[in-house]
Amino acid sequence: MKKLVIAYSGGLDTSYCAVSLSKEYEVHAVSVNTGGFTTEEVNKIEENAYKMGVTTYKNIDAVPTFYNKVVKYLIFGNVLKNNTYPLSVSAERIIQAIEIIEYAKSIDAEYIAHGSTGAGNDQVRFDMIFQTLAPGIKIITPIRDKKLSRQEEIEYLKANGIDMSWEKAQYSVNKGLWGTSVGGAETLTSEKPLPSEAYPSQLQKEGEEKVTLTFEKGEFVALNGEANAPEVNIEKLNTIASAYAIGRDIHVGDTIVGIKGRVGFEAAAALITVKAHHLLEKHTLTKWQLQHKDYLSNFYGMHLHEGQYLDPVMRDMEAFLQSSQDKVSGDVTVTLKPYHFSLDGINSKHDLMSAKFGSYGEENKGWTADEAKGFIKIVGNQNKIYQQVNS
Amino acid sequence: MKKLVIAYSGGLDTSYCAVSLSKEYEVHAVSVNTGGFTTEEVNKIEENAYKMGVTTYKNIDAVPTFYNKVVKYLIFGNVLKNNTYPLSVSAERIIQAIEIIEYAKSIDAEYIAHGSTGAGNDQVRFDMIFQTLAPGIKIITPIRDKKLSRQEEIEYLKANGIDMSWEKAQYSVNKGLWGTSVGGAETLTSEKPLPSEAYPSQLQKEGEEKVTLTFEKGEFVALNGEANAPEVNIEKLNTIASAYAIGRDIHVGDTIVGIKGRVGFEAAAALITVKAHHLLEKHTLTKWQLQHKDYLSNFYGMHLHEGQYLDPVMRDMEAFLQSSQDKVSGDVTVTLKPYHFSLDGINSKHDLMSAKFGSYGEENKGWTADEAKGFIKIVGNQNKIYQQVNS
Amino acid sequence: MKKLVIAYSGGLDTSYCAVSLSKEYEVHAVSVNTGGFTTEEVNKIEENAYKMGVTTYKNIDAVPTFYNKVVKYLIFGNVLKNNTYPLSVSAERIIQAIEIIEYAKSIDAEYIAHGSTGAGNDQVRFDMIFQTLAPGIKIITPIRDKKLSRQEEIEYLKANGIDMSWEKAQYSVNKGLWGTSVGGAETLTSEKPLPSEAYPSQLQKEGEEKVTLTFEKGEFVALNGEANAPEVNIEKLNTIASAYAIGRDIHVGDTIVGIKGRVGFEAAAALITVKAHHLLEKHTLTKWQLQHKDYLSNFYGMHLHEGQYLDPVMRDMEAFLQSSQDKVSGDVTVTLKPYHFSLDGINSKHDLMSAKFGSYGEENKGWTADEAKGFIKIVGNQNKIYQQVNS
Amino acid sequence: MKKLVIAYSGGLDTSYCAVSLSKEYEVHAVSVNTGGFTTEEVNKIEENAYKMGVTTYKNIDAVPTFYNKVVKYLIFGNVLKNNTYPLSVSAERIIQAIEIIEYAKSIDAEYIAHGSTGAGNDQVRFDMIFQTLAPGIKIITPIRDKKLSRQEEIEYLKANGIDMSWEKAQYSVNKGLWGTSVGGAETLTSEKPLPSEAYPSQLQKEGEEKVTLTFEKGEFVALNGEANAPEVNIEKLNTIASAYAIGRDIHVGDTIVGIKGRVGFEAAAALITVKAHHLLEKHTLTKWQLQHKDYLSNFYGMHLHEGQYLDPVMRDMEAFLQSSQDKVSGDVTVTLKPYHFSLDGINSKHDLMSAKFGSYGEENKGWTADEAKGFIKIVGNQNKIYQQVNS
Repeated sequence: MKKLVIAYSGGLDTSYCAVSLSKEYEVHAVSVNTGGFTTEEVNKIEENAYKMGVTTYKNIDAVPTFYNKVVKYLIFGNVLKNNTYPLSVSAERIIQAIEIIEYAKSIDAEYIAHGSTGAGNDQVRFDMIFQTLAPGIKIITPIRDKKLSRQEEIEYLKANGIDMSWEKAQYSVNKGLWGTSVGGAETLTSEKPLPSEAYPSQLQKEGEEKVTLTFEKGEFVALNGEANAPEVNIEKLNTIASAYAIGRDIHVGDTIVGIKGRVGFEAAAALITVKAHHLLEKHTLTKWQLQHKDYLSNFYGMHLHEGQYLDPVMRDMEAFLQSSQDKVSGDVTVTLKPYHFSLDGINSKHDLMSAKFGSYGEENKGWTADEAKGFIKIVGNQNKIYQQVNS
Repeated sequence: MKKLVIAYSGGLDTSYCAVSLSKEYEVHAVSVNTGGFTTEEVNKIEENAYKMGVTTYKNIDAVPTFYNKVVKYLIFGNVLKNNTYPLSVSAERIIQAIEIIEYAKSIDAEYIAHGSTGAGNDQVRFDMIFQTLAPGIKIITPIRDKKLSRQEEIEYLKANGIDMSWEKAQYSVNKGLWGTSVGGAETLTSEKPLPSEAYPSQLQKEGEEKVTLTFEKGEFVALNGEANAPEVNIEKLNTIASAYAIGRDIHVGDTIVGIKGRVGFEAAAALITVKAHHLLEKHTLTKWQLQHKDYLSNFYGMHLHEGQYLDPVMRDMEAFLQSSQDKVSGDVTVTLKPYHFSLDGINSKHDLMSAKFGSYGEENKGWTADEAKGFIKIVGNQNKIYQQVNS
Repeated sequence: MKKLVIAYSGGLDTSYCAVSLSKEYEVHAVSVNTGGFTTEEVNKIEENAYKMGVTTYKNIDAVPTFYNKVVKYLIFGNVLKNNTYPLSVSAERIIQAIEIIEYAKSIDAEYIAHGSTGAGNDQVRFDMIFQTLAPGIKIITPIRDKKLSRQEEIEYLKANGIDMSWEKAQYSVNKGLWGTSVGGAETLTSEKPLPSEAYPSQLQKEGEEKVTLTFEKGEFVALNGEANAPEVNIEKLNTIASAYAIGRDIHVGDTIVGIKGRVGFEAAAALITVKAHHLLEKHTLTKWQLQHKDYLSNFYGMHLHEGQYLDPVMRDMEAFLQSSQDKVSGDVTVTLKPYHFSLDGINSKHDLMSAKFGSYGEENKGWTADEAKGFIKIVGNQNKIYQQVNS
Repeated sequence: MKKLVIAYSGGLDTSYCAVSLSKEYEVHAVSVNTGGFTTEEVNKIEENAYKMGVTTYKNIDAVPTFYNKVVKYLIFGNVLKNNTYPLSVSAERIIQAIEIIEYAKSIDAEYIAHGSTGAGNDQVRFDMIFQTLAPGIKIITPIRDKKLSRQEEIEYLKANGIDMSWEKAQYSVNKGLWGTSVGGAETLTSEKPLPSEAYPSQLQKEGEEKVTLTFEKGEFVALNGEANAPEVNIEKLNTIASAYAIGRDIHVGDTIVGIKGRVGFEAAAALITVKAHHLLEKHTLTKWQLQHKDYLSNFYGMHLHEGQYLDPVMRDMEAFLQSSQDKVSGDVTVTLKPYHFSLDGINSKHDLMSAKFGSYGEENKGWTADEAKGFIKIVGNQNKIYQQVNS
């Protein structure tokens, strides 16, 4: 039988795929953990995979890869899509697709299957990355092709001896290192917010709590003074901040297929880390670094969202972003409060806001009144000339 | 005696200027209300102005002008400097400068005076706009030129028969339609936030409250269903939201003179209006409108902040922004909570997120699986070619 | 029989379509003249159309429409794709598609046919505009669907009583107001230029000739002092300049389908008009107008090229471009020479390069040495601070 | 006596400075060769320097430095200011300033002098770089401060025993690796071109000549198959192309001090190299690399022109540009002709225009008609939805 690798999540759709494809192919199931699964969950997925008749199952732990290949640059770029969404899911899918196709190549699979529908973004990200990195491997997408209802899938599974409980959760949730997305009836229309209970974390603490994020060349190297790999710090920060139910919002954006999509998310660590990092940049970068970073980051987010991660322009942008982080080192203190947070301030040896050079709104130390007047006169030259020529 | 117009705020610095300049010039004091003054405050400023020996005093009510010339475009552009600051003060200064110089021209003044120091942004905005709109009127800036201490100013006033209490407030505050800025000891360094009591509004309400903002072609035309001029709606929204102490933050940015500046602000109505407007745009504008608006708005904010309001490029950008608002009409519901707010959703007949065309993540209605595959295949063409050519 | 409108050019492909579709539909042929056809050519196309069995034939003269809807903005934006190509064909196709679909709607056609292949840009432009403006009209594309060889098409026509000479020209040419594109064996590879004889115009004059273009708010309103509609001036300039064989080049660009395409073109009037207009702008616009126009024009060209003309962002960009032309009025003198041209200079009452304000590199009239020093000191502040903080 | 370093060119202005400053300081003259001087010219400058009474003279050969620090990135970015000017002089001044101040630091000078006037760009570039790299060294600018006439300078020199012939050339010329600028009576107004004889090179060859430029990761590594350092290839190409009087044009741009400036230039090698490099990029880079490079290069040119070379954002942009050159390797053939040149084509193993993947305008090899239709349908989704929602 021909070898097929399937991106397996343990849900109804990929279970259906696993069972039906096992009739024709030697199926190798693989899941990629980008921060969403506990060990128990992985074990459960494995157990289920074998029930579906797969030949092998493998879980790839891709959290460090996810951080190093994508999340790091999202932090460097302070990327929030449409000023809101940390691209939690978009970013994960890229890494999952790369890891899965590399695995398929490593075991000489001829086929690769995924469970995406034909309606959304994920099919584009998966197909494009599979096709680019392995043009010879054929893509199989039963869910997209057959458009079965949940009921039809459940019955098919039952007919094949898989009698599990597949009740649909009221809210579909996708969890990962960089945030959890939440979809439900409310997100299918434009008017209503998600109810509080739809979000994965509920308020557990009152009052305030201060946390300190330490960055070294733009990377989140320590939390509250304790050094760890950045992805570990992100996870730890998320645990702390989730007790305050921080980081809920709804993203409305343009899908790759041209329709608008709305999705709730909770991403405490992502939002805090991006905002803290951005504040540190405001103190340590020049005006033009901040301005040009905005242009590039906006497009970096758009291209990533649209699955264009393998376009070499992404590497060029990453080179810019990496270079820009040279002095982005220091501590940022953040106050966590119920449902929101605020930034206290920063401490950095690269802080350009040094009283040595003058304080804004206070006395001018570094220049005289006459120098200021000369500056203003010449800075205003062109507009003065324009006005005189044209009036 | 030669006619001089002075931008008069009633504070120590401009009082010193009014008194000392009255010895040499026929001084006409003028204040420009961009939303910061009550009638009582204006009366008090007038009373003081005459005490300082000015020949005439005039208050110009510029709130509608401020809205129409600047605030409107800041909303159209969702402008938040460095993703944080609504440019409250920067925007006011522009309109104040224009109103004052036009007044000076209307009474044939030969001199114009302002009380800015040589350290900050305001001197640049005032001088540049004065010089551009009235190259023949000479600018006088005693505070910048003499660099007197507060004590010296107070003594000078006392020696001239003005014996008022000039105690320095712990926090300097600048209030206007588009927000209140707050400076204090904390904002002179990088580490500390402002204490809660430094902000003008304190928490007065618990619980939640919903408000509905109605936009018509991008303009905020009604609050909770009651129609009014946008500047009135902004003021009313501010009153409602301030009871929840919403809108506090600290901005760190690049001054026009090249140093970093840090300033606290409270701008409930500005932040809520911008965020609500942006959400409505996410539903009604195309992907490319959103993307290119970001580029222009970023620069619109930079140029405005730097006093380049009279550069004709600002009119060009405004033409773009105005055009982009054609379909930005509808209602946005916002929930106010202690210290923060969240966006519920929108209702608009121009909403592009219509279930008629398919729902994100659900079944594809508007196209088939094969069409989706064709799309992906061709969208991915260039990266596939790149990979094959270069590997 | 059901009504079908066909975009008919008189060539082999659309003749094949006309004949074969006439068997099933009531075929209404339409051609759109965007500057490429003489009256004789139109008469010939009409004559042939009826030979192919169509029910009606109509030629739409769209030259003024083409100018007003697209070419005008390409001039305002100085748009040259990849700094080279005036988008001659891309721009025409948009207007042709719009005119044809409007015609189809006006006669209540149920079908619309075009002769594009499945390999290129034109199918995207036609389909997208047809689908957007008339979602109810079904698109028929026999050439794309059947992939017939020229020989098969010729034989089919012969079998249907059409025995014309269809010899393939060595170079395929597409002529219009904004330039002529030229394809041939050389443009299918990357190495070779087109031979001189492939271009439509050959050198007929030696020596030099001066021409003067007069612009009024960015529009080309007179040539050599003679006023005319801009599209007429463009045609007349093209005739004059073609005698010098000016305007040849090769464009290499990204097609909408992701492959690279290479095409020769000759566009004397387009290149001269854009370069002359750009020079006038360098004298009359501010630095920031020039800078931001570049960003928008670059994207305007990309979106137009990709058939996204109906995206509302194009209207927003046009509003910006229109606003920017307010002072772009004056004369530009150009010297035509064999195979190339040079710009002599401009004369405009809006010229910002006025000796009144000082001449570059000569003495400073508008400011003192000390003012210049003050300017430089403060302009350099941030980099000085950066260097001191970080060294 | 206190040590002073002077940027010495041998002209009247710097000779005046050298003589007058030698009365107060121990003067160390330094010239920086960025490609403009022959050995004889350097010897002559040295001879003259000692006549002016300087203590030491040193010529710094900075051609390789100039290439590596600036010219390389101008090629990577295809930078032509306002689409015209290769920034010949702007780029040189940066390197000259850096080399001179580093020399001053190395000999512990306390003062540094340059001969710029107060009217132009050079004073800004020199002062800013001096102040940034050596805040402790005081800048002396006699020409800017005293605003002497040529006659006064000549008489001063005569009175000090320097009786040389200082007749003013009709055209002031600045020569360097990256081009020669030419100023004259014509460039002080807007209307007239420079006469042919004002340009340094005159037509010496008729007919045509082909040259081949080989690039390796964006660098110009061989000319006509002969490998050399890029700066040597540029010089050799310039010699060959100058015989055809190629590369003349006039630049009109915004000076740093806000006035418009007009300057003629001849830059055969710069223009040919940039255009050839750009063509190679069109074949080897993706659409988004080309698009984003345009944004960054436009600003790179602006910042460089304005003397902001030391802003760290320039390093970030260089990182992007360097990354983007990874596949920009191959040969470009150019045909030189009297007064102009044309690009023949390219040969590169990284060429993305490979017939393997389909040829533009020919048959579609990589996809079917149905796939193309699916692509177009979904690419057009948003505009279709927009039209339907809003009509």
